Amino acid sequence: MTISKTGSLHLEDLHVGQRFTSATHTLDAEQIKAFARQFDPQPFHLDEQAAANTFFGGLAASGWHVAAITMKLLVSEKPAIAGGVIGAGGEIAWPRPTRPDDVLRVESEVIEIKPSRSRPERGMVTLRSETLNQRDELVQVLTAKLVVPRRAGSPQD
Amino acid sequence: MTISKTGSLHLEDLHVGQRFTSATHTLDAEQIKAFARQFDPQPFHLDEQAAANTFFGGLAASGWHVAAITMKLLVSEKPAIAGGVIGAGGEIAWPRPTRPDDVLRVESEVIEIKPSRSRPERGMVTLRSETLNQRDELVQVLTAKLVVPRRAGSPQD
Repeated sequence: MTISKTGSLHLEDLHVGQRFTSATHTLDAEQIKAFARQFDPQPFHLDEQAAANTFFGGLAASGWHVAAITMKLLVSEKPAIAGGVIGAGGEIAWPRPTRPDDVLRVESEVIEIKPSRSRPERGMVTLRSETLNQRDELVQVLTAKLVVPRRAGSPQD
Repeated sequence: MTISKTGSLHLEDLHVGQRFTSATHTLDAEQIKAFARQFDPQPFHLDEQAAANTFFGGLAASGWHVAAITMKLLVSEKPAIAGGVIGAGGEIAWPRPTRPDDVLRVESEVIEIKPSRSRPERGMVTLRSETLNQRDELVQVLTAKLVVPRRAGSPQD
């Protein structure tokens, strides 16, 4: 992999099929409840007892909490994408619940690279990021479109 | 709109084209930075000065923060969906940045309703939720698939 002199990845450094693995994040019940109190205050994210009789059958993390942890793991990967991890949007799915004490990691693969026609200094990269737990079970799939600068003529040079 | 005796919305209470408007949430720089420190520690979410020379040209909220605030606004709507707002996944896009002091609200519309064949007690509802700022500018579009229980024979009865 070619790395620029600043040690970050530009569009030219990426290729379809390229894979990245993140560090891990260990969840616990208190993190699940703290996120839920602020952003998703529903019984199945707030309280073990109340969660038992819901769709989830027990305490589960908000999907948006899993998405936020996934982002934390993505932005801490090295080498980093030049200019940062900037997403225009994408598709997200949560095939199964995330539970207290799950240890999450993110495995990503470059799916598509499209240089921009109107903006020669950058392009759009489609990155599929699977968030897995310690049993290698898929808890989230995020297919995101990222804005990535080109090295030649980019402001980051 | 028909409301069940518990005051919550079941699959039978929803129809395509039905619209909902949330309360508002007022953002500020400190909220943006606090979320970023925990989940998306990139310069354009952490520091006004550092943000000035980035893609965003100034401090902007993490897209996942906007998603989390959108969820908070969705779950606080009344009448609530029976069993809670339970998303299996969806599509998300951030057409423009969210800034300090933006006042966000969510306007949602039911796009599709599909009773489940394998699970007669529930169905899947596609909800398109637009998150708008105080200038009625679109900052996020979320098209989410929600699990919604039927009133007849549902465990919520």
